Amino acid sequence: MEIGLLGGTGDIGEGLALRWAYHTDHDVIIGSRDLDKARKSAADYEETLRVHDTPASIVGLTNAEATAHADVVVCCVPAYYLTDTIKSVSNALEAGDILVSPAVGMKHDEDGVHYNPPEDGSVVALTADTVPDGVAVVGTFHNIPAERLSDLSREIEVHTPVVGDDRRAVDTVIGISEEIDGLRSYFAGSLANAPEVEALTPLLINLATHNDGLHDTAVKFE
Amino acid sequence: MEIGLLGGTGDIGEGLALRWAYHTDHDVIIGSRDLDKARKSAADYEETLRVHDTPASIVGLTNAEATAHADVVVCCVPAYYLTDTIKSVSNALEAGDILVSPAVGMKHDEDGVHYNPPEDGSVVALTADTVPDGVAVVGTFHNIPAERLSDLSREIEVHTPVVGDDRRAVDTVIGISEEIDGLRSYFAGSLANAPEVEALTPLLINLATHNDGLHDTAVKFE
Repeated sequence: MEIGLLGGTGDIGEGLALRWAYHTDHDVIIGSRDLDKARKSAADYEETLRVHDTPASIVGLTNAEATAHADVVVCCVPAYYLTDTIKSVSNALEAGDILVSPAVGMKHDEDGVHYNPPEDGSVVALTADTVPDGVAVVGTFHNIPAERLSDLSREIEVHTPVVGDDRRAVDTVIGISEEIDGLRSYFAGSLANAPEVEALTPLLINLATHNDGLHDTAVKFE
Repeated sequence: MEIGLLGGTGDIGEGLALRWAYHTDHDVIIGSRDLDKARKSAADYEETLRVHDTPASIVGLTNAEATAHADVVVCCVPAYYLTDTIKSVSNALEAGDILVSPAVGMKHDEDGVHYNPPEDGSVVALTADTVPDGVAVVGTFHNIPAERLSDLSREIEVHTPVVGDDRRAVDTVIGISEEIDGLRSYFAGSLANAPEVEALTPLLINLATHNDGLHDTAVKFE
């Protein structure tokens, strides 16, 4: 399968690219607004994989080209870039494509970090409201610490909830997620259930702030 | 320490009563609107403890009497009874008392369970807005499956976030919580951080609905 990571030069994009290239045979495509940045990150990730004795070819393209090539697109940009990014690639999205949203809207104040959903109800719902008709939106990966994901010498040991209205798309995403060693994906319902999934991320950040042992904490459901 | 469980005849009250009596030397007081119900539950819990070779004395009182005796009060009633229950015991609450809120506001529809906070922002904040001045409110235990808590033959193996503005009260609650074997408590910030803590409960319920292995799932932060 071809997996495109829009904004794949950022930390969550890096982690997913490395893990899919390291643990699976899927083709990983790094997308960026800036083609040179995409190519540079792709080359850097290839070098990291060589160091970990797993040579793999990772391609760097513009976000639109990455979208056109990919079967599954993960939109790895921060929430405030999300709609602009999706609009910039919408000509390359077709009915039947799968777009994955791991972004969370948060606000910071003196009390810590708070969930701050858009008017659509959640970032996943905003994503669904922005993609062309027929594109299946799936929400997941919100709660994976990027640092842990990017460090190939570590076991990930993370469980992540998955939401989506299109069960075929959800199952495809759960399938490629669980091919990553140590990652377990659990269906948590339709897109209407996304707020509770996204709200987990600020909780984890607040726990990390206040507890020494939890600096890059994740959850397990068990 | 004397621990009062308002609405201690319900499932979360039962679980906390049994665990504190089983694992610690704290005195457990069951409160109810109905004195006979409180006494009946207290006797039932004593019988369960005898079966598990840990005889203990558990007292049943009215909610107001339980509050007057207790150092720490846990309000184990559903969210929609919360303000009425607190008002009914407010004469017995004094400055310096600690009131713990494990309730979550939720709504159910065809998509599952959703977090449904009151206008105060969270049930914990509503609790803080309802108690007399000087009473310290702490939010925790939201995400502990009652079934697992009540079954003394099971290891609990649950981590629970704790929020509160009064750090002394928070530390007291963390202390008596972690005396229960298998329960780990982690500070998650001030009362302003309660919504993300409460929103974890509907997420766990949705995960339980959709995943066979997670019927009474809890979280671990690690």
